[in-house]
Order: sequence, then C-alpha cells, then structure tokens
Amino acid sequence: MNDQGLAALFRPRGVAVVGASADPTKMGSVMARSLASFPGPVIAVNERAADPAAGLYPSVRAGADATGATVDLAILCIPAALCAAALERAAAGGVRAALVCAGGFAEAGAEGADHQRELAEVARRHGIRLLGPNTSGFLSPAHDLYATFVPGARVVPPGGVGLVAASGGVNHALAFLLAEAGHGVSVGVGLGNAVDVSTADVVEHLANDPRTAAIALHVESVGDGPRLLEAVRGASAVKPVVALVVGRADVGDFARSHTGALATAWRTTRAVLAQAGAVLVDDERELVDAVGQLSLTRLTPNADPGVALVTAQAGPGLLVMDDLRHHGVRLPQLATDTQDALGGLLPPMTYQANPVDTGRPGDSFADVLETVAADAEVDLVAVYALSEPDAVDLAEAVSIPARNGQAVTAAVGGPLAETAPVREKLTAEGVAVHPGPRSLSTAIRAVVTDARQQRRARESLDVPALPAEADTVVSGTGAWTEHDAKVLLDALGVATPRHIVFDSVHGALEGFAALSTPVAAKLLDAGVLHKTEVGGVHLGINTREELATAVGRLRSIGARQVLLEEMAPDGVDLIVGARRDPVFGPIVLLGLGGTVAEALADVTLRAAPLSVEEAREMPDDLQGSALLRGWRGGPALDDDALARILCLLGRLLVEHPHLDEVEVNPLRLTRHGLIALDAVITTRSPHG
Amino acid sequence: MNDQGLAALFRPRGVAVVGASADPTKMGSVMARSLASFPGPVIAVNERAADPAAGLYPSVRAGADATGATVDLAILCIPAALCAAALERAAAGGVRAALVCAGGFAEAGAEGADHQRELAEVARRHGIRLLGPNTSGFLSPAHDLYATFVPGARVVPPGGVGLVAASGGVNHALAFLLAEAGHGVSVGVGLGNAVDVSTADVVEHLANDPRTAAIALHVESVGDGPRLLEAVRGASAVKPVVALVVGRADVGDFARSHTGALATAWRTTRAVLAQAGAVLVDDERELVDAVGQLSLTRLTPNADPGVALVTAQAGPGLLVMDDLRHHGVRLPQLATDTQDALGGLLPPMTYQANPVDTGRPGDSFADVLETVAADAEVDLVAVYALSEPDAVDLAEAVSIPARNGQAVTAAVGGPLAETAPVREKLTAEGVAVHPGPRSLSTAIRAVVTDARQQRRARESLDVPALPAEADTVVSGTGAWTEHDAKVLLDALGVATPRHIVFDSVHGALEGFAALSTPVAAKLLDAGVLHKTEVGGVHLGINTREELATAVGRLRSIGARQVLLEEMAPDGVDLIVGARRDPVFGPIVLLGLGGTVAEALADVTLRAAPLSVEEAREMPDDLQGSALLRGWRGGPALDDDALARILCLLGRLLVEHPHLDEVEVNPLRLTRHGLIALDAVITTRSPHG
Repeated sequence: MNDQGLAALFRPRGVAVVGASADPTKMGSVMARSLASFPGPVIAVNERAADPAAGLYPSVRAGADATGATVDLAILCIPAALCAAALERAAAGGVRAALVCAGGFAEAGAEGADHQRELAEVARRHGIRLLGPNTSGFLSPAHDLYATFVPGARVVPPGGVGLVAASGGVNHALAFLLAEAGHGVSVGVGLGNAVDVSTADVVEHLANDPRTAAIALHVESVGDGPRLLEAVRGASAVKPVVALVVGRADVGDFARSHTGALATAWRTTRAVLAQAGAVLVDDERELVDAVGQLSLTRLTPNADPGVALVTAQAGPGLLVMDDLRHHGVRLPQLATDTQDALGGLLPPMTYQANPVDTGRPGDSFADVLETVAADAEVDLVAVYALSEPDAVDLAEAVSIPARNGQAVTAAVGGPLAETAPVREKLTAEGVAVHPGPRSLSTAIRAVVTDARQQRRARESLDVPALPAEADTVVSGTGAWTEHDAKVLLDALGVATPRHIVFDSVHGALEGFAALSTPVAAKLLDAGVLHKTEVGGVHLGINTREELATAVGRLRSIGARQVLLEEMAPDGVDLIVGARRDPVFGPIVLLGLGGTVAEALADVTLRAAPLSVEEAREMPDDLQGSALLRGWRGGPALDDDALARILCLLGRLLVEHPHLDEVEVNPLRLTRHGLIALDAVITTRSPHG
Repeated sequence: MNDQGLAALFRPRGVAVVGASADPTKMGSVMARSLASFPGPVIAVNERAADPAAGLYPSVRAGADATGATVDLAILCIPAALCAAALERAAAGGVRAALVCAGGFAEAGAEGADHQRELAEVARRHGIRLLGPNTSGFLSPAHDLYATFVPGARVVPPGGVGLVAASGGVNHALAFLLAEAGHGVSVGVGLGNAVDVSTADVVEHLANDPRTAAIALHVESVGDGPRLLEAVRGASAVKPVVALVVGRADVGDFARSHTGALATAWRTTRAVLAQAGAVLVDDERELVDAVGQLSLTRLTPNADPGVALVTAQAGPGLLVMDDLRHHGVRLPQLATDTQDALGGLLPPMTYQANPVDTGRPGDSFADVLETVAADAEVDLVAVYALSEPDAVDLAEAVSIPARNGQAVTAAVGGPLAETAPVREKLTAEGVAVHPGPRSLSTAIRAVVTDARQQRRARESLDVPALPAEADTVVSGTGAWTEHDAKVLLDALGVATPRHIVFDSVHGALEGFAALSTPVAAKLLDAGVLHKTEVGGVHLGINTREELATAVGRLRSIGARQVLLEEMAPDGVDLIVGARRDPVFGPIVLLGLGGTVAEALADVTLRAAPLSVEEAREMPDDLQGSALLRGWRGGPALDDDALARILCLLGRLLVEHPHLDEVEVNPLRLTRHGLIALDAVITTRSPHG
C-alpha cells in the first residue's frame, strides 16, 4: 500500500507535543487540549522547563522511555528558529512524522527561508514525513486525533470526506462547513508551506484510505505539476476528487505572504486537474456541496447521465432546473409508461414530464419517487421539498428508492428542527440532504461531471504516435522558418496551402504558374517571428506584375528566401499550439482566432500527452464553440481531425525536449477541412 | 402613504379561513394551525358544514356578526371552481383583502383560466386586494401572522428583510434560509398566479414599510415592465433591493405550468432591474447573503467604495479576496500611517497592506479593526476569523468599530455552538455574520454594488433631448432607406461617412470625383433589409471603371437608387440600437460587432429613456470591453460620445411611437471617433 509513510502522521501510535506548557494561552497548551481525545499516549515535552514528575519531559526520548510509549508523531509548538534542532532531537526519540505549526519560515523572508531549509534537511536526513511548517494542523477524526490549534475542531465527526487544503485555515473552515452540512471527515490536512508532505502525497494516501469515500482539494500553488496530475488521476479512478483552485483574480502578493509560494496559473491548474478526473468548483461552499454529495453518491461511468427532478414545490424546482440546464445537465423527458404511471399517482394539473411536480406531497410521494427512479433514462433522482410533516414523512419516502439501490439526492427546506432529523436519517441511507436549491444543483452537477470524467478516463487510450517522418523532420537542428514548420505539419498530416520556396525572382514567376491565384508571398527568415509587423507578408497576389512588386518589396526588407503559397478559402480561424508550462510541462492549447476572441481570452488547454478522447472535449470548452458547428451555414468542425492535431502537437513537445513551443496561428476551419496557414516553432536553444 | 391597500392583507384586524375543517389533513386545518399565533380574531368558515356553536360559521359575515370581529382578510382554502363565488360572499362580510391558495387556475388549462378570470372580476368589482391564486401564502412575522400552508414557517422571526417571491415555495424556502442565517423577515409573500397583487405592488408597500430595511425579489415573469421598473427605482432610493431572476436557461415549459406565465427574457429583466437600482444575484443563497447583509448595512452613495479585509487566517481571506478582485471590488492599499499603526499591533511576519492578516488573533484584534476602520480609504471593514475563543472574544472585538458607526461585516468559521452566540451578539450590533468566505464576499459585493447604484441614481439627471431637426426628420412617413436613416443620424449628430445618392451612372461618376477613395456603392431600397445577401454592396471602389462595373451590377439586381459613400478607416465595430421589448417597452442595446461577438452574444441593454450616466456604464458590461480601451494601440472609446448616441436612440423610440426599431450596425470606433457605417430603421406600420 502506497501511503507515502503518512500513516505515522495520521495514525500514530503515540504523539509528543514539543513546546508543551502549563500556560493555557500558549500554543502548546492549546494543542494539548485538542489532543485530549486521542486514545494513545501523548507525551508533553519542554526542553527548557522539564518537570518529569508532572509529566513534562526534557525530550521525546525521555518521555518515551519513561512511559514506554512508541511516539510516531512529534508536534512542534515552538518558534521557527528552534524547530530544526528540536526535530533533530525528536528523531532520536524515534519519531517518523512531524507537524510544525509555527510561522516565520519561507513566507517571512530570507531568515525564515534559512530556517525552512534547515528543517527540511533534518526531516530528509531522518526520513521523517514533515507536515508544515506554517499550518494550524490536521484532523484525523477516525482515529480521534485532532492535531490542531482550533480545539473546536473536535466537533467534526469521522466520515467519508478526505480534505487536502493548502491552508490550515481553509482546512478548518471546510471541516466545520462539512460538519454543519451533515458530513464527516476521514482526514483533514492544512499543508502550510508544504516543505515535505505535498498535496500529491496526501491525495495518494487518501486514495488508498478505505475510510475516505471522496477527496476535496484546495489548491493555492502547485510544486510538481506532473506528479499532482498523476496522483489525482490515480485517485479519481477509485473515488471522486473535487478541486477548488485559488487565484482567478490576481492575488499574488498576498498569496506569497501566505505560504511563500507564487499562485500557480489558475486556468492551467484547473484544466489539468479536470483532465486528471477532478470535478472543479468555484468556491468553498460548492466544494462542500460537491464532495459531501460524492462521498455518498458516485454513478458508474456514464457519458451523459440523465437526472430526474421531483419537486414538492415548483418554484424552488425551477431554480434547480435553471441551474442544471444552464450547465448542460440532461433532464430527459420521462418515458410514456413512466408518465402514465405518474398520471395515476398525481393530480392532473401538475407537470409530470421531468421535472415532476407533485404539488403538495402526500401519501403517493414514495410511489412517485419509485416510479421515476425506475425510468430507464434516469440515473439520478433529485428531490426538492419543503418540510411539511403533516403531509408526508419525507425521510421515509425518499429512503425507499435509496434502499433499492437507486442514486438519490435531496434538498429540504424548513425549520432546522424539522430538517435536521430528516437529513440525519437520509444520510444514514446514503442520501445527501441539502439546505436549498443551489446546493442541490451544485451537488447534482458534481455527480454528473464525475460520471462523465470516469467515462472519459476509461476511454482515454488512443494517444496517436508521431509519424516516423515527423520524427525525422523534427530532429533536424537549427532555427525554424515558416516553411520548415509547414514541412513538419505536412509530415504530421496537417493540411497546409500549396506552396513553393524560391530565392530568385525568376524562380518565383515560374512557380507562380503552378499555383492557383490569389497567392500570398511571405518573407522566409527564421529570425523573424512576427512577419506582418515588418512588412513581410503580401496577400491577394493575382498577377505576375503584382508578384514582381511584392517580391521586390520583400527583397528591400532583406528577404533572401520567399514563400509563395495559395490563399485559403474563408473560414473560422483557430489558434492551436503546444508550449511548456513551468509547473505542468508540455501543455496543448486551443483558442479561437481573431481580435475579439483574443480580447476575451477564449482559450482551453490540456496537459500533454493527451488522448484523442481528451482532445475531443476541447472545442466545447470554448465560449464561442458555436462558431465551429456550422454557424450561419459555415463549415462544421471534424472533431476527430482537430483532436488528432492537438494530440500530435502535444507529443512533439513530450518526445522532443529541444522544442520549446509550436504554434499554428491560424489553423483555419474551411469547407475543405482544417488548413494551417501559418506556424511558428521555437527551440529551447536557438542554435540547437 | 401608498401601500396599495396591502395593509388589509399584511396587517388585517381580523382573518377568516374559508374552507375550515375539523379534519387535520385538510388545507383549511393546516392554515388554521399556521394562524394560531395571530393575536386578532380568526373566523372559521365552512359553507357546507357550518356549526356556529363549535365556532364554524356558514359565512364570513355570520362569523363577524357573531363575534363582533372586523374581518379584513379572507383566506380561501377551497377548490378553484368554488373560489369566485366564495369571494363574492366574503365581500359581503366586509373583507378588503383575500388570499387564494388553491391551484387549478390559469396554470392548469382553459377551464382553470376561466376560474381565474371570474375570481379576478369579483375582486376587482369589490376592490378586494387579492393575493394568488396558486400560492402557499405569506408571512407577516411582525404582526404574528403566518398565513401559510407550511406551519413550520412560524420559526421565521420578525426582522428587516421584505420578501417578494413569484412562488410560494421560494418565499418559504427563502424565509427559512434567512432565519437560519440569523435574519428576520418583515413580510414574505409568494405571489403565485398574481392575478391582482403584483411584484410592483408589494415592492411599493415594502418601500413604505418602516419595518422593512431591505427588499428581496424573486422574479419568474414580469407583467407590467415599466411599472416594475418604477417601483424598484422608487424603493431602491430609500432602501436596498436585491433581485434573483429565473430563466437563464430555457425553462419555459415548466415555468408556464407553474404560474401560467411565460418566463420573461432573463437578460432584459436583469438589465432593467439593475438599472432601476437593484443588486442582482445568481441564486437563492446569494440572495440570502446579500439581502441579509443589506438589511443591516447600507453605505452612503459612493462611486467606488473601498473595502478592507482583516483575516485571522490568511487562507480563507485569500478566497474572499480572490472573489472580490474578480468582481472588481476595490481593496485599497492602506495608508502609510495605518500600516505604521498596524506594525505596532501585529507581528512583523504578517501581511498588513490590505488584506491585513493578523495571524492568530489576540488581544490586539479590536485595535487592529479600529485602526483599519479609521483609514480614509476604507468604507467597509470585513473580517474573517475561525472561532478561537481561547485567543480572542470575537464578538466583543468586532462590535467596537460597529458601535463607533463604522460599517463592518464578518464571517466566522467554527462549531455552530461557538459561532451562533457570536452571530447573535454581532447581529444585534448591526454586524452581519456569515458562515464562510463565499457568503462574506457575496455580501460585500452586494453592499458595494448598492452604494454604486445609489451614486449613479443620484447622478441620473442628464437625459439628452432630441435635436429639433431630428424630430422633423423622424416624423416623415414612408419606409426608411439607409440614406433616410443616415440623414436622421446626421440630425442626431452621429457621424456618417461622406456620401451622395444618385440614380444615374452619370451622376455617380460626377459625384465620385468629390469623394475620397476607396468608396462603397450600395443598393438603396427601403424594401431590402439585408443588402449584402442580395449582392447590394460593393466595397473598395478606387477607379471610375470599378464604379461603373459596380453600378452596372446594382442596376442588374433592380437598383433604382444607389448610395455612394467613402469607406471608413479600420477600427472596432459595435452594434447599437433601440427596439421595443414586449414587457419593458423601449430598450437600448449595445454589442460588439463581428461574428465572434455575435456567437458569444456579447450584448448589454437598458430601458429607455436612459440618462447619459446610465449609458456610460454600458461599455464596461461587455465581455470584450478591453477592445474599446485602446487594444493593442488601437482607438479608445469616448464614453460620453457613445452614451449620447445610446440615449438619443432610446429617446427616438420613446417619443416616436411609430418607430419600431433603430439599428446602427456597424457603428465603428476609429481613430477619428465613432462613425455609423450602416443603419436600419423599421416602423410599426410599414406604410406609416
């Protein structure tokens, strides 16, 4: 079992608090109060004020010897400058894991960075898994271990949600919100400066932890991108993963002050996590809704699950439906048989096609739910009802399809005194109960997204190989001209306009006869990346005279070689490319071309290598994707053709480390398919 | 006081339940239980099973006579088919208001529509204000009146939030969510089919109700658009209004089944409500966050309030900041003096510029808040903290600036047992306390938006008048050619390309010499709306020969008149126009031109007439507004010039009822300002 050695952290046999104190306001005392519920031995250590008779030992080793305890975990509640030395001494006491809570490390300037390096070095040398520094701790409720500065955290019950937060504060905030929403936590971790234990480590641990049913991630920055992608991909194959990524706006200054790391590019991190199978959310309450729901409900892989919505009050149901429709969740029309059966159960004036509106719910409510659940198109039944105990026993009615193995979720409005028992009873039956329409729709979207991601993950096999010819072309050394780039595209099977290269006017005029007009004449010079800006592009050449003029002008700006090519028909311009992300490595991009699309940054991306199935999802990420679907009688995209190009560009960077970036701009969607009109390739060493 | 006669509904002296029953499962019985807290007389009426000795009367009048009660409000708990007749008889008992709960009216087909018409007719004839039909009722907690089928609603305490929901279910759902969030309700209404009492009526009532501090709207459809705009404008001048509009996705079928009305266009309704001063939200929990906050905190009018964020834990603070920055809320850097003062209160390693991160809060927390609140740039102080009762008395610390008159809001994470008393104490001091980062940021955004709306409302005075010349031009009869439209634009002071109109080749060639090349030659025919599609536009004409060819072609498609005009320089194309909305009347639109912008529907709108100040806000609503701000060295928009055009187009439709639509497409932003390249005007009667 790959637990990354984290069992010693989250399931220690014994714990030592270094910096224990009799003063109740000191951190060591607060920590000791949090640890009160831990069933194993807790050794209090104070190197400067030891009093072994009172159970306050001068070292972990002394405490362990005196009590016979095996201390796996040392919790350091002492200032930053003292931590490295203290950890060194704790190692002598046999600890295999440590939690360092103090701030004053890398987030606080050069001196702190030195402390952090020393601390990391001690941990590395002794093979100690180190959580922190600069974190308020972690919770391991299944083991009654609350290693936190927030003693109130003991109200968080054990349960199926595993939490990995960049920040100790967010870890606690989420744990409290989950508890309030009726969900328990298996392990909840705030990473702080993450000098050793990383998000990926904890994700791998939780993936293997049988008590964890779903994993929640809060991400501020990513160190090792490919490792995180791998960890999330592995975890999402066995249980749902939900991710909240910070940094949509520019919060760099404050973020750096927080954990000493730059916020990783928000858009890239989100794209890669989704590609790895995570369900993305936009804020902490969506995180709670989604992961709470997914800890109880995971559908089998499904490309487009059908959701049925049963409402006791149409108004709140309409809010749910509006949000689901807006986000592309399918609410299939119920089968005629189903509607007939509902007709026998409900008054005629209600809507019964899906949503199913029961009007005020009554005795038939359970039968309605069972009938809807039995419809072949329905993978998930969602219920909204106000608590009306005089009319129906909601908990009982909703339990029935759940007990029959149907995936069910619900929202119940009403006084907490009425809704809390309903929630408690239903949660025990595996039905999440939400407080309102929006948390219900968020939860439904999460279940649907997870089922779709699972399906795609299963299909993700076809990663096209580079044609041998392309490998040969790309291995050449030297800088790349547009022509070189197009030769490579030809080798990849990407269409380019018919073209010739020449270096004399005579050659140009001869070649011109072989091309269809109009043609474009372009400067060919590997040293010039932006040809248009230097007057290196002449379009719409129809005659030999115009060509001669254009070539003359190109020569006057120093052109020695000229590319002559047929102009493509009109169409929709795309930008496709592959580049190296500093965190995630090779990344493939797809965007709409043109000024408006650029101003809107209408771009989507994936980590490479990627499969055809992953690439096929990219066009629909674009806000303007309608333009690719035969907009106003225009050309329609062949998704497979584009996906293949995206995959191959990614592979180029994966397999050829000397390439820095490949950009095809524009790749034009025409009636005759996709045509690459211009391309730029840059290498990591220009003279490579 | 303009209460629309709704005092009889929400503050009746006595109430009658028509359809009272001894059977506890009947609606009449449920209603009676809800009414148990009402301190005034409640008369039980059952026309078919009267038993006066047992307090069950055959009519409202009989009950009133027998008990001496004055019955202002009749609540009808009987089937749809019986309601009109029952209301007629209740009128004889002196009732001035009625609540009709049954469904089976317009939402349920033709027969129901008949019942609804009859019911409305009775109400109208007797001057009875009628709420419903097809609603679960209303709450008037300030008067201990819970006229609802959801008896649990009695947990909703009296308070400052007035609720107007399209749906009875949503009214209740919101009231419960507000109560759970620590807020009370003055009046909460579900309109149902809204045959008489409308959203606008209730908004006007609540605007005048001293117990209502802020108003929440839930809108599914709008009957009288201008009336609603007026009501919201009036209300938002005196207290905050928050609006949730349903129908972002297509939910038409289900919506119609719900209240019998088509969902009003989502985008238009939102735009008009915002223009009227409402704060828009996207779901019911944002509604609760926003209106709860605004019921306690309203800033004075302010074009761009500054928010200071004080965090006890940086991670949750970063979530708040990310959301605020993304939504354009200003977090000003604190003054040097403020930072110096904070430096004396906080450990050196924390971030103190804004956000102010206190690290673990301690004794100095109150001083930190006071120091931040005193900064001249700070209009609202927001606090995030986890409950750490050992470290600080949060309620006390946060109260201090609030008592000094500073606007403060907070979010506190922790066990409910710890956070609930903090919330209770702070709410009493006028400080809303939220459960997490996202509800805090939503609340802050609402306060900031409301302050900005107030400021704009105060400024909204300058509605430019139509130039007299334009009035003359527009009054002409007959269909409009492009030339006619451009003559009108000239009269409005909107620049158009230099142009001439001719109907002979000779005239064209003569005129050509007077224009700068290149020129465009266009078919001039009021019967052709889409000239390009019929080959009626020839661009880029540089020579007399090219002109002759173009004119020949135009003649060949039947042109009798030709418009010859100079071509405009490159720039950014906009679409501006005015049209008549079926609900809101004259509407002004602004969008980006071009295919991509059209595919993205990047458009914003306002109801006309609108002021220059209102119109000035429109460009920044566009997703692609960066294109108008000197994108890549291109031209920058003169906001006032565009605003003036938008105002005048709106006024055209307001003052000239025979005009149906005016569209300028494109209006090009060039280095020489805005130029109208094409325009179409249609009239309501084509031969008008």
